[in-house]
Amino acid sequence: MKIGFIGLGIMGKPMAANLSKAGHQLVVYDVVPDRMADALAKGAERGSSPADVASRCDLVITMLPNSPHVKEAALGAHGIAEGARRGSVLVDMSSIAPAVSREVAGALAAKGMEMLDAPVSGGEPKAVDGTLAIMVGGNAGVFEKVKPVLLAMGSSAVLCGPIGSGNVTKLANQIIVALNIAAMSEALVLATKAGVNPETVFDAVKGGLAGSTVLNAKAPMVLAGNFKPGFRIELHIKDLQNALDTAH
Amino acid sequence: MKIGFIGLGIMGKPMAANLSKAGHQLVVYDVVPDRMADALAKGAERGSSPADVASRCDLVITMLPNSPHVKEAALGAHGIAEGARRGSVLVDMSSIAPAVSREVAGALAAKGMEMLDAPVSGGEPKAVDGTLAIMVGGNAGVFEKVKPVLLAMGSSAVLCGPIGSGNVTKLANQIIVALNIAAMSEALVLATKAGVNPETVFDAVKGGLAGSTVLNAKAPMVLAGNFKPGFRIELHIKDLQNALDTAH
Repeated sequence: MKIGFIGLGIMGKPMAANLSKAGHQLVVYDVVPDRMADALAKGAERGSSPADVASRCDLVITMLPNSPHVKEAALGAHGIAEGARRGSVLVDMSSIAPAVSREVAGALAAKGMEMLDAPVSGGEPKAVDGTLAIMVGGNAGVFEKVKPVLLAMGSSAVLCGPIGSGNVTKLANQIIVALNIAAMSEALVLATKAGVNPETVFDAVKGGLAGSTVLNAKAPMVLAGNFKPGFRIELHIKDLQNALDTAH
Repeated sequence: MKIGFIGLGIMGKPMAANLSKAGHQLVVYDVVPDRMADALAKGAERGSSPADVASRCDLVITMLPNSPHVKEAALGAHGIAEGARRGSVLVDMSSIAPAVSREVAGALAAKGMEMLDAPVSGGEPKAVDGTLAIMVGGNAGVFEKVKPVLLAMGSSAVLCGPIGSGNVTKLANQIIVALNIAAMSEALVLATKAGVNPETVFDAVKGGLAGSTVLNAKAPMVLAGNFKPGFRIELHIKDLQNALDTAH
């Protein structure tokens, strides 16, 4: 299938590579032209704008930093809406505010384009491996149609409800992950500053109600002095801000 | 061994029962006389005050709500310090501020009494089963001496460092548990209010980085509408206040 792919950053680049590997012909676009180099080298066609990409494909995927970028790419000048084919589908895999997913979907529906929100969990390593967890919101029939494409990038794709539900589920995930990391950090810092070996604390608490995937994954790194980030703090803040906005 | 046991509330009562069951002769005391009924029925001797209990035993255990209660029982009028035998041991199993553990230990040392802080994790069910996790601070030689007694009440007893270290470890545990519960709650409420089935969210996130013992233990209860508490919110607040005080 010919697939449009807009946004070839840290996540989008390996996701697009996995679609190429699965045999799909890509038409790519990024506001930073250099980011397209890898995809073009792998045989993708170059798009000149989101509108151009949309005019050439029945399925368009976006992987962008946040709500304003998705809104601009979809509804701005030379945006997807301008080039949208009737009956085509936009799968927005960015992590954005659910209200914006619904707004963009409504505007695209007027052009005869369907939309799913399909944010992912797993970060760059799982984007590279094609083992992302994909949380989807939208129409069930559309979901079934694009599911094989999603599974070229992820190990699971779950329909969570109507449009916006993928991002609601992602926000719920991010609330838990961010707060579990903060809780672990506060606990280990308190113990250390109070003179107790944080390794002893980790060993004492990990088997009880304090146990978590975050604790098992991150505490050994912290204890080893390895603070290489698995995710950017600005993106945690973005997600928590989107959670607060959604709550309001 | 003849053991003094002060504080026969929700936790202390089953812990004392497990010591009786293990063959220890108890001398018990509680400010609320009715709370001693179960222990007396099981053959314990009645103490008339913490001082009286301490004067009759080489090992005294306290299980009280918070720092002020421990300070009063140990150092107040008719307190443990007044009756303390030289070379005897106080094991305070209450969850209190580590600074108070150190203060009480210092005052008792002047009377020739050793002290361990040994707060527990696991709640009433594990107190009944004798499978508490016991986190200990204090002298290693004293710890080894009383460890068999501790293991009549718990499935593990770990020396975490000098006096106060048990409570530091417990506070680290409580920070993680309380915040993980709060994170799960916020995530499920947000999803529900945003129109997504919280069961779908639980299924979507539990296998990823959001997974935790709290999520596995508590989310199914929440989803079933079962809000029977496993711990009192006032005690969570007490623990977090002790964490803040310790941090300051």
